[in-house]
Amino acid sequence: MKYELYYWPGIQGRGEFVRLALEEAGAEYEDVALEADAISRIRAFLEGADISRPPFAPPFLKAGRQIIGQTPNILLYLGEALSLAPKEAAGRLWTHQLQLTLGDFIDEAHDVHHPLGPSLYYEQQKMESKQRASEFLASRMPKFLDYFERVLEGNGGHFLVGRRITYADLSLAQVLAGLRYAFPASTKRALRKRSRLAELGEKVFARPRIRRYLDSPRRLAFNNDDVFRRYPELGD
Amino acid sequence: MKYELYYWPGIQGRGEFVRLALEEAGAEYEDVALEADAISRIRAFLEGADISRPPFAPPFLKAGRQIIGQTPNILLYLGEALSLAPKEAAGRLWTHQLQLTLGDFIDEAHDVHHPLGPSLYYEQQKMESKQRASEFLASRMPKFLDYFERVLEGNGGHFLVGRRITYADLSLAQVLAGLRYAFPASTKRALRKRSRLAELGEKVFARPRIRRYLDSPRRLAFNNDDVFRRYPELGD
Repeated sequence: MKYELYYWPGIQGRGEFVRLALEEAGAEYEDVALEADAISRIRAFLEGADISRPPFAPPFLKAGRQIIGQTPNILLYLGEALSLAPKEAAGRLWTHQLQLTLGDFIDEAHDVHHPLGPSLYYEQQKMESKQRASEFLASRMPKFLDYFERVLEGNGGHFLVGRRITYADLSLAQVLAGLRYAFPASTKRALRKRSRLAELGEKVFARPRIRRYLDSPRRLAFNNDDVFRRYPELGD
Repeated sequence: MKYELYYWPGIQGRGEFVRLALEEAGAEYEDVALEADAISRIRAFLEGADISRPPFAPPFLKAGRQIIGQTPNILLYLGEALSLAPKEAAGRLWTHQLQLTLGDFIDEAHDVHHPLGPSLYYEQQKMESKQRASEFLASRMPKFLDYFERVLEGNGGHFLVGRRITYADLSLAQVLAGLRYAFPASTKRALRKRSRLAELGEKVFARPRIRRYLDSPRRLAFNNDDVFRRYPELGD
């Protein structure tokens, strides 16, 4: 099956977690963000009167006649379709639980530059962002990182779940890369103290298909329209 | 199977979405929040060195030997176990997608009183909350409500998915109740214009088992330590 991934052009964003799963599995897919008519094709699904199960927002995935929205839900589906999650029910739920916790982590990393909400620009909430950033770096980021380090340790240090890579490992590596971009000094210090996380991030990004994707023009650079943003004035 | 639900005492919070599913299905469960040693029993799972798949935070559900965390993940599990979701894969994913979108809505309703992050008190971020509330009421709440009204309409107006109640309907009714508590005037106006949502909320809360639960002492009142909070100074 050839998938179609719908996501806003110009950023990695939440679409990137889906891209990494598709790339790791060598799946065939159209990345609609790279097409000139991306926005109108996305809008047709968000606003189309004939769409019986409309997504609330991108990313969403077209898989045959099915349209699947919400990043963790897309990965739940692909985890089974592309063998990027355990086959047994308990392992599949646990992988999904880790993905949802990564989703909370990503939301909080995003909220650093949007504490007053998603409809205002960063420039309209710089002062508040500074406060939120200091809380994120002092308290929330360490709490999330400690949690994932502990899960890795509990599983023998190699992957988050079992003995094979899952979509949760791919997403965790992407989160670490995003944190390295947004908060380079804090992340470097944090990963020095959490060697399993640091190793996982390197190992995932060294996998042949992921490496090839990251080196391709399809992988966009991190930038300040994205979820993870580099604003040195926020205190890192 | 007798389930054990672990959640902080004193609030409905995210645990309430799980409670409503358990109650609607007439499932047997221990609500650990009602026990005197709730906090230490929760901590044993969050911090226990012998827990191989630790939850990041409550709520979590013990189902036999399985410990399942993250509200939407618990509902994904219970949807199948308690027949509160369609049996076929596409319908199950769609129900989960709606739940995840409700989760985003709940997060934004929470962030109204915590724009600078979860580690500070509301009293330390009142000014910022006021700005965030005005954005929420003017832009975000209508967008989410329009979406769910449209999904109800697309499905014939009765339930969100198919012809039977799912956990997503229960959660939507709870969100509407929370909004009615936190922003009574805005919610009243909003539901007058969205009759399917208003009807769904009433219908769900009139179901015999849900009614019995809501009338019982087990149902806590909304309060200002909870996700949905009533602060008239925020502009409603």
